[in-house]
Amino acid sequence: MITWNNLDTLTGFKKLQSLKGETISAEKLTPERVRACCVPIAAGLTYNYAAKQTGAAVLAVLQELSDEAELVDKFAELYNGGAVNTGENRLVLHHLARGQLGNPVVKDGRDIGAFYRKEAARIAEFAAGVHGGSIANERGEPFTTVVQIGIGGSDLGPRAMYLALEGWAKAAGAQKMTAKFISNVDPDDAAAVISSVDLGRTLFVLVSKSGTTQETLSNELFVKRFLQGAGLDPSRHIAAVTSETSPLANNPAYLASFYMDDYIGGRYSATSAVGGVVLSLAFGGEVFSAFLRGAHEADLGAKEKQVTKNAALLDALLGVYERNVQGYPVTAILPYSQALSRFPAHLQQADMESNGKRVNRFGKPVTYPTGPVIFGEPGTNGQHSFYQLLHQGTDIIPLQFIGFRQNQRGEDIETGGSTSQKKLAANLAAQIAAFACGKGDPNPNKSFPGGRPSSLIFGERLTPEALGALLAHYENKIMFQGFLWNLNSFDQEGVQLGKVLTKQALSGDTGGALRVYADLLGV
Amino acid sequence: MITWNNLDTLTGFKKLQSLKGETISAEKLTPERVRACCVPIAAGLTYNYAAKQTGAAVLAVLQELSDEAELVDKFAELYNGGAVNTGENRLVLHHLARGQLGNPVVKDGRDIGAFYRKEAARIAEFAAGVHGGSIANERGEPFTTVVQIGIGGSDLGPRAMYLALEGWAKAAGAQKMTAKFISNVDPDDAAAVISSVDLGRTLFVLVSKSGTTQETLSNELFVKRFLQGAGLDPSRHIAAVTSETSPLANNPAYLASFYMDDYIGGRYSATSAVGGVVLSLAFGGEVFSAFLRGAHEADLGAKEKQVTKNAALLDALLGVYERNVQGYPVTAILPYSQALSRFPAHLQQADMESNGKRVNRFGKPVTYPTGPVIFGEPGTNGQHSFYQLLHQGTDIIPLQFIGFRQNQRGEDIETGGSTSQKKLAANLAAQIAAFACGKGDPNPNKSFPGGRPSSLIFGERLTPEALGALLAHYENKIMFQGFLWNLNSFDQEGVQLGKVLTKQALSGDTGGALRVYADLLGV
Repeated sequence: MITWNNLDTLTGFKKLQSLKGETISAEKLTPERVRACCVPIAAGLTYNYAAKQTGAAVLAVLQELSDEAELVDKFAELYNGGAVNTGENRLVLHHLARGQLGNPVVKDGRDIGAFYRKEAARIAEFAAGVHGGSIANERGEPFTTVVQIGIGGSDLGPRAMYLALEGWAKAAGAQKMTAKFISNVDPDDAAAVISSVDLGRTLFVLVSKSGTTQETLSNELFVKRFLQGAGLDPSRHIAAVTSETSPLANNPAYLASFYMDDYIGGRYSATSAVGGVVLSLAFGGEVFSAFLRGAHEADLGAKEKQVTKNAALLDALLGVYERNVQGYPVTAILPYSQALSRFPAHLQQADMESNGKRVNRFGKPVTYPTGPVIFGEPGTNGQHSFYQLLHQGTDIIPLQFIGFRQNQRGEDIETGGSTSQKKLAANLAAQIAAFACGKGDPNPNKSFPGGRPSSLIFGERLTPEALGALLAHYENKIMFQGFLWNLNSFDQEGVQLGKVLTKQALSGDTGGALRVYADLLGV
Repeated sequence: MITWNNLDTLTGFKKLQSLKGETISAEKLTPERVRACCVPIAAGLTYNYAAKQTGAAVLAVLQELSDEAELVDKFAELYNGGAVNTGENRLVLHHLARGQLGNPVVKDGRDIGAFYRKEAARIAEFAAGVHGGSIANERGEPFTTVVQIGIGGSDLGPRAMYLALEGWAKAAGAQKMTAKFISNVDPDDAAAVISSVDLGRTLFVLVSKSGTTQETLSNELFVKRFLQGAGLDPSRHIAAVTSETSPLANNPAYLASFYMDDYIGGRYSATSAVGGVVLSLAFGGEVFSAFLRGAHEADLGAKEKQVTKNAALLDALLGVYERNVQGYPVTAILPYSQALSRFPAHLQQADMESNGKRVNRFGKPVTYPTGPVIFGEPGTNGQHSFYQLLHQGTDIIPLQFIGFRQNQRGEDIETGGSTSQKKLAANLAAQIAAFACGKGDPNPNKSFPGGRPSSLIFGERLTPEALGALLAHYENKIMFQGFLWNLNSFDQEGVQLGKVLTKQALSGDTGGALRVYADLLGV
């Protein structure tokens, strides 16, 4: 029987606090250490923690803390269908959307895994029909573009995954359709996307689990007006992804409907129908299956109890050491791959919405910091932007680097004796060394303190499998951190108040400061 | 004669420290306060600080601090050509690129303002030639697409400004050419852009002040190879923006060359030729002039000594109160405008590269925090992502909202009794109130502590003038904060070590950890 305790009540955490002040330096970062600190993730990806502020003593305590907090047992409770999402008494089953980790999960007499598999098969069949031409527009012409309409988890994850695979798919001949995304209620967002596509050849995917998301429903009507204005039938151009109990379900207004359920949160839905429809339309069902395989393989790795063999678990524990012992409030995600341009934005949601909480799973305020701020941009771009602060600012920001040996598109050029891909990788290697080791200089302005910790996830090439593994690694890291902080990582009550006040501002019968702000903004 | 002192030596700062713990709440945020706390910026923009943790006592001390630190006098020293960039003994003259604030600046017998004006006129003439067809491709066909090749300040600012004006320009009939951008040394970046354009109709703008930026030169050769492969003459397809002393200057390899100088830093170069060429090609010289006018008008406002009448100065001072007295290490930039999707990324560079420093302008370590981490995404998207942490996380993150009464493209739809634009604005108003006021609930998980400070910049519509004013506001805010922290905000020595180590990694003759990382990454 697992027990849920606050982080600061654990013996392991108290021991960890006594290890405050661990450092990284040129002396510590030996070649042997870099080679030794490798943990396989899945699909050819490896997590390297050599440049972290850690050593044998910290690792031993992290193992103790992991065991004491029953982190891997809690993971098993979750994937076996325990009600880990206590506040809402819901199951948390995004892992099941990509494979079976434990027992079959049966709820209210229903086999949830079978339901997910059935939807996955329906999606693959639908995508094949669109690609084969049996599902076509009014004039029998094939669809060439897919536009997802969704916000938050129905946008960030699927969009980041699409961008991450577009170059790979082009090089592999796997690109079937171009994908675009409409998310913001700002009407300029939908107008810009609509003006950039051939509406007659465009298939829209409307994604809202509840079927009541304000932004998404407004954008649906926006799109419908343009379709109708072009003499097109919206019911031939829009498919829905929703829950079976939503007003969008089984609705003849849509060309097709695909289903998810309450057991997959929006920010964990990229491997469900929410990501599945748009990615399968863009790249084909087999590519989406490969993406799920990579995620599932990483999930299997997260079942390992030894922290130095479980990359997600170790990443989570080192993150808690940085946040709660070293006191660092921010973490940067720095992928050296242009394809991952929006992956940091997706992780920003996945992490900050999951663990940006101030009460524990029982509703009691916690007395320690929880989820950090997450931000990032691709390298080398970031090097010419905010890295100045990372190197020489007054605060230490832990860094999470991601890189690959090969690029995606296969086009490259050699200049000055090296390819662009090798320059990219060399920049990444150089940054890890620079942050950890620093460099003295008689001119203090040119001196680098070093001692700034980072980790590296690396692999051969960003393929669908590797992307699935990368995504699942972070999802599992966030889950383990939520367990450590004793949070419910699977609700988001913090978004509710804004919704209520927005309605008040729109209704016009509110007073006070809200009314004045609304007036200033022309509401 | 101005004097340069560390923040913690100033009497005003000591007084400010005694005011630690100011709050904002539903009680304090009265309608009268919202109406009163408005400071005009320029071009119809207004800065509102009603929801900041401030009051009469803080404002009085901020005035004292501003006077004691001679902030406005230092600004005058800067725009009159004093060597404010002490480390490198360079002038700082980006303000002069958009208008005359003080005396003519003559350096080494050369009138710098006249030089900037001459280049601006040359750019406008060039753009008119391209638009009129007198400057065309080998076959005499007009160019339809412009692709900027640059990184850091040669990419983020111009790209953010282009995206910010694209919708406005489309609605105004002012869009002359589509603009795209290549920045990353990752060869997938250039390959993706090249595959998306008609090379024969594309004009490239190569931007590197030094003419030696590794990424930009690699991408230039990448582009040239594709141009040659398509049977096109690169010298008819590439214009250069560089300094007069760079290897790119006066080079017959380019269709045209435009110049800037060492007195405009990359991150402040959007109003120079770096932004000017691509924006003038995209939208015409008159639109770029309007953008400069807005920036200049905001610069004029930054000369005001009364802090409650100088928005950039007040924003800077309140930020220092938050960073150095309240102890908040992060600031979020939250524009409620999809057009400003990359404006936070630009500010991330502008702010973090300017003030992410640990030694003062004389090379002595400072003992107080300097520049915060800057991040952000457009609303309402962010509401469905990281706002959970902003509302209910354990840390307070000061927020900078931006919003407009009208959208750019003029397309909108009414659903449920309100337009999408009004929903967007209502969400913004609601968030400010929710963050400041919070809301109690018997369920602690649904309770909002409030007390979370924000500011708002608002205006009628995001026009070229408004965008210029918005950009200049932030540039001037960052400048004033650099003065307060006694930093040199206009160098970036923190990027140098990575460059040196990258060369070592590529040369192959390095050992140690760097070599192992390079091997792992296939260098």
